[in-house]
Amino acid sequence: MINFRTDMAIERNDIYRKQNNIENQIDGIITEEEQKEDINISRVKILNEQGEKALAKPKGDYVTLDVKNIKNIDEEGIQKIAEVLGDELRKIIKKHITDTEDILVVGLGNLYVTPDALGPKVVPNIEVTRHILQYIPSAMPEDTRPVSAISPGVLGVTGIETMEILKGIVDNIKPKMLIVIDALATRSIERISSSIQIADTGIVPGAGVGNTRKEISIRTLGIPVIALGIPTVVDLASITNDCIDLFIESLQQKAMSNDYLNKLREKDNYEEIKEALIPKDYNMIVTPKEIDKLIENMSKIVAKGINISL
Amino acid sequence: MINFRTDMAIERNDIYRKQNNIENQIDGIITEEEQKEDINISRVKILNEQGEKALAKPKGDYVTLDVKNIKNIDEEGIQKIAEVLGDELRKIIKKHITDTEDILVVGLGNLYVTPDALGPKVVPNIEVTRHILQYIPSAMPEDTRPVSAISPGVLGVTGIETMEILKGIVDNIKPKMLIVIDALATRSIERISSSIQIADTGIVPGAGVGNTRKEISIRTLGIPVIALGIPTVVDLASITNDCIDLFIESLQQKAMSNDYLNKLREKDNYEEIKEALIPKDYNMIVTPKEIDKLIENMSKIVAKGINISL
Amino acid sequence: MINFRTDMAIERNDIYRKQNNIENQIDGIITEEEQKEDINISRVKILNEQGEKALAKPKGDYVTLDVKNIKNIDEEGIQKIAEVLGDELRKIIKKHITDTEDILVVGLGNLYVTPDALGPKVVPNIEVTRHILQYIPSAMPEDTRPVSAISPGVLGVTGIETMEILKGIVDNIKPKMLIVIDALATRSIERISSSIQIADTGIVPGAGVGNTRKEISIRTLGIPVIALGIPTVVDLASITNDCIDLFIESLQQKAMSNDYLNKLREKDNYEEIKEALIPKDYNMIVTPKEIDKLIENMSKIVAKGINISL
Amino acid sequence: MINFRTDMAIERNDIYRKQNNIENQIDGIITEEEQKEDINISRVKILNEQGEKALAKPKGDYVTLDVKNIKNIDEEGIQKIAEVLGDELRKIIKKHITDTEDILVVGLGNLYVTPDALGPKVVPNIEVTRHILQYIPSAMPEDTRPVSAISPGVLGVTGIETMEILKGIVDNIKPKMLIVIDALATRSIERISSSIQIADTGIVPGAGVGNTRKEISIRTLGIPVIALGIPTVVDLASITNDCIDLFIESLQQKAMSNDYLNKLREKDNYEEIKEALIPKDYNMIVTPKEIDKLIENMSKIVAKGINISL
Repeated sequence: MINFRTDMAIERNDIYRKQNNIENQIDGIITEEEQKEDINISRVKILNEQGEKALAKPKGDYVTLDVKNIKNIDEEGIQKIAEVLGDELRKIIKKHITDTEDILVVGLGNLYVTPDALGPKVVPNIEVTRHILQYIPSAMPEDTRPVSAISPGVLGVTGIETMEILKGIVDNIKPKMLIVIDALATRSIERISSSIQIADTGIVPGAGVGNTRKEISIRTLGIPVIALGIPTVVDLASITNDCIDLFIESLQQKAMSNDYLNKLREKDNYEEIKEALIPKDYNMIVTPKEIDKLIENMSKIVAKGINISL
Repeated sequence: MINFRTDMAIERNDIYRKQNNIENQIDGIITEEEQKEDINISRVKILNEQGEKALAKPKGDYVTLDVKNIKNIDEEGIQKIAEVLGDELRKIIKKHITDTEDILVVGLGNLYVTPDALGPKVVPNIEVTRHILQYIPSAMPEDTRPVSAISPGVLGVTGIETMEILKGIVDNIKPKMLIVIDALATRSIERISSSIQIADTGIVPGAGVGNTRKEISIRTLGIPVIALGIPTVVDLASITNDCIDLFIESLQQKAMSNDYLNKLREKDNYEEIKEALIPKDYNMIVTPKEIDKLIENMSKIVAKGINISL
Repeated sequence: MINFRTDMAIERNDIYRKQNNIENQIDGIITEEEQKEDINISRVKILNEQGEKALAKPKGDYVTLDVKNIKNIDEEGIQKIAEVLGDELRKIIKKHITDTEDILVVGLGNLYVTPDALGPKVVPNIEVTRHILQYIPSAMPEDTRPVSAISPGVLGVTGIETMEILKGIVDNIKPKMLIVIDALATRSIERISSSIQIADTGIVPGAGVGNTRKEISIRTLGIPVIALGIPTVVDLASITNDCIDLFIESLQQKAMSNDYLNKLREKDNYEEIKEALIPKDYNMIVTPKEIDKLIENMSKIVAKGINISL
Repeated sequence: MINFRTDMAIERNDIYRKQNNIENQIDGIITEEEQKEDINISRVKILNEQGEKALAKPKGDYVTLDVKNIKNIDEEGIQKIAEVLGDELRKIIKKHITDTEDILVVGLGNLYVTPDALGPKVVPNIEVTRHILQYIPSAMPEDTRPVSAISPGVLGVTGIETMEILKGIVDNIKPKMLIVIDALATRSIERISSSIQIADTGIVPGAGVGNTRKEISIRTLGIPVIALGIPTVVDLASITNDCIDLFIESLQQKAMSNDYLNKLREKDNYEEIKEALIPKDYNMIVTPKEIDKLIENMSKIVAKGINISL
């Protein structure tokens, strides 16, 4: 099986096609692209088990929005992207529940670790209505959807699995859908805080490896889970792999490679290089220096987009 | 019934005695004082229904620590107070559960409203062990108590009653005790971020008024709830009341009062003054200018105190 | 001399007229009011020494913008107010320098004390151009005004008088004007983070008391200084004074006052009340609980307003 | 000349010796090592022009403290390292000024960019005395050293060169020495927020390249400048270089290299790889995920160390 080193369906689709020399669509997968207001929208639909196997992701819809230059964006720009995001989100929500059914927004991550702070920064900007509908219903239009929002923290801080916290809350307040904001792994530096993947398949870490312990999805919670995933960092290990791959590729193009190198490239990893470069105690990440500002702007876009869709 | 305008048992005890001209202990209540390391410790024990009625607080232990000059405290000072707090807390915990039973620490409040941020600032500094005991038990001594910690947010941000969130989590992860950090109402400016009340009766907002909707206690959760309450603000309305009371009192002392004023004092409030002074849209508070620093230091004391006690 | 207990020209004008029973304009002062987009604009022009003496403020223009409901304002609302502020600011700047002369924006205050953080929060949002004009002038239109911005910190943190820091910088980089953002004293709770006073007379603390040590003005720096002052807190001492004044006034209206009280009201202060209410170690302030949000929104308005004006 | 891609004298010393196959000391340079409380202290003394040329750094003392595991350090650990740092700093200060001469501490960097926030986070924790000595000298012991501290911001936010701001302040308040806290470039991920270099030669960016525009040193300010440099990030470009170097080295060890590769290694850079990997709009950095916590802890160590030394 391919080690994709990315959670993004669109990247997996490209890698799979390249590795298997597929020129057209992969069997069991439909993709399409659209351009809206400088935003590139890619749609990957995994139709059946064959598609599931190819991309090692569950059946469902994966929409990716690629936006440019979030760093220097102004409020008008934020508004534009939020509207496109809101549209896409609304379409996916409608496939699963009605306009007045209860939604709980969940911001995963750790507020005190900058590249992991996106989820917790979105939550305070969600326009929650559930409590108003409960205590002073007359203050809101009749068909207002009950919306609530929570930031459950991370295991290292709470000592509790996120799934255990969510299970408790979902059982108790009984929403009809979860929208979960989460960080994604990507292989492309350019996607950091610039891509948003919307998937209606929940969050299935380690999917395909058989480890479903922390899965947050309809299977574990009994309600549909929309995942809003945004890449905020790239693993240094992933970068060093790509770096050496690119290096060998450039040698091959110049006919300066050799048999050993050509074979090397087929293997996936270069453990000794990584060990020499990367200290073991740390979780090394690659990120733009401007990550604080990127997270700030992206959290505004996501909060607005969700508010528009609801 | 007296409108105490304070949540602190020790203040209520003083007000009740003064208003009823009681020189000794109130029936059904035992109080004692102790001095430790510059810290004044007051203990109020409400023994029975008579005591409950007098102070409008449930039966149980209320311990108040009064510390001085938190603003300029150094780390040594923080450590000293934390140790005294830890001691008192440990004594109260022991009355209810064993040394290895599971505790969940809950930090109430809103991180983004400075005087309300104490609870959420304590949580990341609690040494949680529950997940380590679960996944790598060998990494900890055998008799380690499982500790977890959560900051559930506030109704206005989440749209969910804190009690609903806690109920879900407690039902799901089944701790044997809750320690809840909360802000208290006080009448004394000097107590702001300088007093800590430990009570084993949980949090009973509106107690005595019959409104127990949001009560967090053994009655609603089925497990003992220790409340760590710290005053962080005083209502401006409470200050204006005290201000006019003091004014009339000073007139009486100078024999410059009159019948109207004397009668006025017996009533509790001066609504028209408040209306003229305090704009209705706002929730006006009185606080030291240095509140950011006070909250910072007090959150360190509380986190350390809890860690020591566990 | 009147103890105004406010830095706002418009409040001083009202107090002076009331205390001296002046029905029309005060000699040496012209005032006017205007309404723009829900914003009330008051203009006080102090024309001569007579006006200076009345209000204990130097000759010059004082424009006050009163805005409503900053707490719940959205970005559109922020934009509207910023445009009105920008207009007023532009008019005052034009009286003193040309469109291409160099301006230094100064954000006074302490970032780590919420109600004092406005100035430091405005500075990072000022669109500075001075360095671009210096290093890559071709990147900007020819008539761009050089703008720079600094947040010099406060005496307690730096150990240096703000005036000394500014003097050094002004001597070295030679701007033609300073725009200084500062907190103001007010007597009205309603003005907290809701009023903006623009004055072209600089910042003259203790003016009228002869203490000009820290004055930041054309007299001390040699260039015009526009002060943007925003009230963020009210002193508790000021509130207790107003509280007792209002109380006596209400007694008088009900004919329940007496000679002693009537005379008392003419004196300004009630020291013993304050001493009993307010602990001496602290600098007690009255503020809306939502002050974090108010400061956040007001800092956006001020930054945008300045950017528009430049 | 060697492209060292590091600002640390000790790393340059190692690289120079390796590249020139020098077994002992480089001419004009003395180095020594010491171990104190788990802290490795390296001293590099550049004695003359020969040493200056070798390391492309000015004559003077460079002391590097390497500390371990800053991420999980407790307050006791912080105190220990701060004491060692304070000792080293005191020794260097004494070489240049007396115990009562005026020092200005300068925290360079941008508070709003996490890996660049160290300097601005140190400043509020420096115990400044200059203003107390000026206004209430009796409150301090007679031989107290006047200390002040400032965080001048960065060019992109202020529009003013840091050197221009400092020049203005130094000319005006006339300290006898500057201690400047700054971020350093390093080649070793392990040194991130774990090494502190103390140098008495000021900050000379681009030294050896002839670009001395922003130099902060005795040459430009007329007073000695101690630089406290801490690496907080590694450039991704530097990592990719090292990655490919290591790769070729491992091929050579396995006798799997070829002539082309062997020659390649002697050149310094692999521009096309970098171009393919690193998007041009961003300033990509490599950093531990825990950088927020590392910066927090390191800023405490540096502030305490400086306070101890003064």
